Amino acid sequence: MQAHSRTSAARPDAIRSHNLGVVLADVHRAGARSRSELTRRTGLTRSTIGALVSELCALGLVVERRPDLHVRAGRPSHVVQAAPSGPYVIAISVEIDTVIVAGVGLGGRILARQDEAVPEDERSPEQVAACCADLARRVIASLPRRTRPIAVGVSVPGVVSRATGCIEIAPNLDWRDVPMPELIAERLGRSLPILVGNDADLGALAEHLRGVARDCSDLIFINGRIGVGGGVIVDGHRLHGVGGFAGEFGHMAVDPDGIVCHCGGAGCWETKIGERRLLELAGRPEAHGPIAVAETLAAADRGDPRARAAVDEVSSWMGRGLGALTNIFNPEMIVVGGTLSAVLRSRPERIRAALEATALPVAAATVTVVPPALGADATLLGAAELAFAPLLADPLRTMAAASA
Amino acid sequence: MQAHSRTSAARPDAIRSHNLGVVLADVHRAGARSRSELTRRTGLTRSTIGALVSELCALGLVVERRPDLHVRAGRPSHVVQAAPSGPYVIAISVEIDTVIVAGVGLGGRILARQDEAVPEDERSPEQVAACCADLARRVIASLPRRTRPIAVGVSVPGVVSRATGCIEIAPNLDWRDVPMPELIAERLGRSLPILVGNDADLGALAEHLRGVARDCSDLIFINGRIGVGGGVIVDGHRLHGVGGFAGEFGHMAVDPDGIVCHCGGAGCWETKIGERRLLELAGRPEAHGPIAVAETLAAADRGDPRARAAVDEVSSWMGRGLGALTNIFNPEMIVVGGTLSAVLRSRPERIRAALEATALPVAAATVTVVPPALGADATLLGAAELAFAPLLADPLRTMAAASA
Repeated sequence: MQAHSRTSAARPDAIRSHNLGVVLADVHRAGARSRSELTRRTGLTRSTIGALVSELCALGLVVERRPDLHVRAGRPSHVVQAAPSGPYVIAISVEIDTVIVAGVGLGGRILARQDEAVPEDERSPEQVAACCADLARRVIASLPRRTRPIAVGVSVPGVVSRATGCIEIAPNLDWRDVPMPELIAERLGRSLPILVGNDADLGALAEHLRGVARDCSDLIFINGRIGVGGGVIVDGHRLHGVGGFAGEFGHMAVDPDGIVCHCGGAGCWETKIGERRLLELAGRPEAHGPIAVAETLAAADRGDPRARAAVDEVSSWMGRGLGALTNIFNPEMIVVGGTLSAVLRSRPERIRAALEATALPVAAATVTVVPPALGADATLLGAAELAFAPLLADPLRTMAAASA
Repeated sequence: MQAHSRTSAARPDAIRSHNLGVVLADVHRAGARSRSELTRRTGLTRSTIGALVSELCALGLVVERRPDLHVRAGRPSHVVQAAPSGPYVIAISVEIDTVIVAGVGLGGRILARQDEAVPEDERSPEQVAACCADLARRVIASLPRRTRPIAVGVSVPGVVSRATGCIEIAPNLDWRDVPMPELIAERLGRSLPILVGNDADLGALAEHLRGVARDCSDLIFINGRIGVGGGVIVDGHRLHGVGGFAGEFGHMAVDPDGIVCHCGGAGCWETKIGERRLLELAGRPEAHGPIAVAETLAAADRGDPRARAAVDEVSSWMGRGLGALTNIFNPEMIVVGGTLSAVLRSRPERIRAALEATALPVAAATVTVVPPALGADATLLGAAELAFAPLLADPLRTMAAASA
């Protein structure tokens, strides 16, 4: 943790609240921290840390436990951890055919979980919002009454306005201009802040905070299924873009002679590596979904020539696009999720070779391409982080607002 | 200015030094600020601002002047500005055929300037470093003795390691692994910190701080001549990448059937829009430089069919690549510098149409594509900012080190 951001003044009146948030965020991220670790990591004094921890205890956000005296020599330090009866958030992952809702506590613990399949003819924004609200109520009802939700975070497979949380476009659900926060709020029957984010952005955040990219400050997360989206962490911060629409890697133009994409562009990367392209090349244009992709990969492994050619071509295009992104971002890690993750597991050398043929050697040398660690929970845990962000930025104000 | 970075604790002992830097940076960026503006922008109290300004005066970094009493009603506020006899930095712009060196004062004022053409057979790293050191000594000698240089910032047309300042590769100078800070330091005969950055990164920084993109927090700067490099500002901060190599847009793969680039990849954007491609398409493969580009654009305007077709094709490829970058970054502004700037001025509609055919409408709608405001001075002023960064981050320590 560095001392300060260069461009922000430190106002005496804001320092206590800010430092409460820094300590809470560190405990939240790690699950538990000793007082001495907190002292070392923040650079604050022991007595300041003691006062901040006491205040977080009084707010019901953390608890302290005595250290196990037999474990180590020296004067042991108290351990600070998220309060088991502390506030939690509602995390919602809207996928194309499923809605998953969880209660997630400080420390990133999933406390309760509900999911429901969404049939193809029940995917209007209103129907999906009703499903979200219904599952959220069930999650809240299943949790002890002494705890309470403080915010809702929603992951959606679409382009989300940073300013309003409105879904500008979700091509695979055929949605446009959907005011998701309002639709859920009307159906939830509770006054809670509702924050919405793009699934790949939230996947990137979750893998950065709790997954395979925990120690990376510069990473790209690619969520590749039918559509191909991405999230980027730059120097530890999410890349939003001016409107919140950054990371649309699927619509990077990679082939001037390529087919026309649903976005209107030609030769978008998504048309080269998406699930539809793989299955079409493999001679199964009517198939879809992770199982069909797995079957195609298995057929390629068994030596089926058409499946093998399809997997080879998609892998080469994956590597070529990853190489372009390596030149653009110089990331330390690229996390490939969704059904593309299975392609990566099947053809790592081919993908790597295409990346190295495309990227500058200095940038290629330091990038690793890996599957995600959190699997399908990445977007859910990312949605939880979105909902926790106001609490971690200002615990005093957020807890006061939640009690009001 | 926001209150704090979310991930950094505010240590009482570091606050004064930090706030001195925040006030100095604000004055440096604006040139002059009234005390009341500083109070409003930082959120600090009037008395704290008064104390910080006094301390900066005592350090010789700023001066205060009385406001002009006749200008406005109400109680006028003192105006704080960079001290005319304060410290300055040496800014060096290494270009392929020229070296430019300037003394730049706080506030971004160019105090003195020297340049020298570098003949093609005198471009070894040692020869260029000797030229830099020689011009720097001349600049220092031309400035009053009561002022003094505190650091050197160097812009180079190459890929620079963030950790060491070493130039990993500068293709158009045919350099590899050049320890530029050491080469200049040995020849300068003064002990000054020497910081090196990529020209497009520094151009982006200068246009963001002092140029056309002053009010943009998310922008892309493209420096297109023979090679095409870029710099990105994300939410007000430079995109470095893990090693400092981000922004190599010229090597974004845009055409699988394209020609092989000097980097080894095929169909790199640079091979579609660089100066060589334009002149080759126009039937002048032996020509090079801004004058030949201007002649080709003029010939196209006069109706020369071959020149017109060349400019059209390069413009279409420019727009297509800018569209891909728009999908990736969702920038507010794209600043196109170098000889590509002339192409942009010549064919704005064609470039815009290709961008809109490639980028998602939500992202295309908010991006503007413009020429730079600072022209050839962008990299020089960016190099000055690189050299000023340690002073602005910690004025007390930097001034103490400079006096030692």
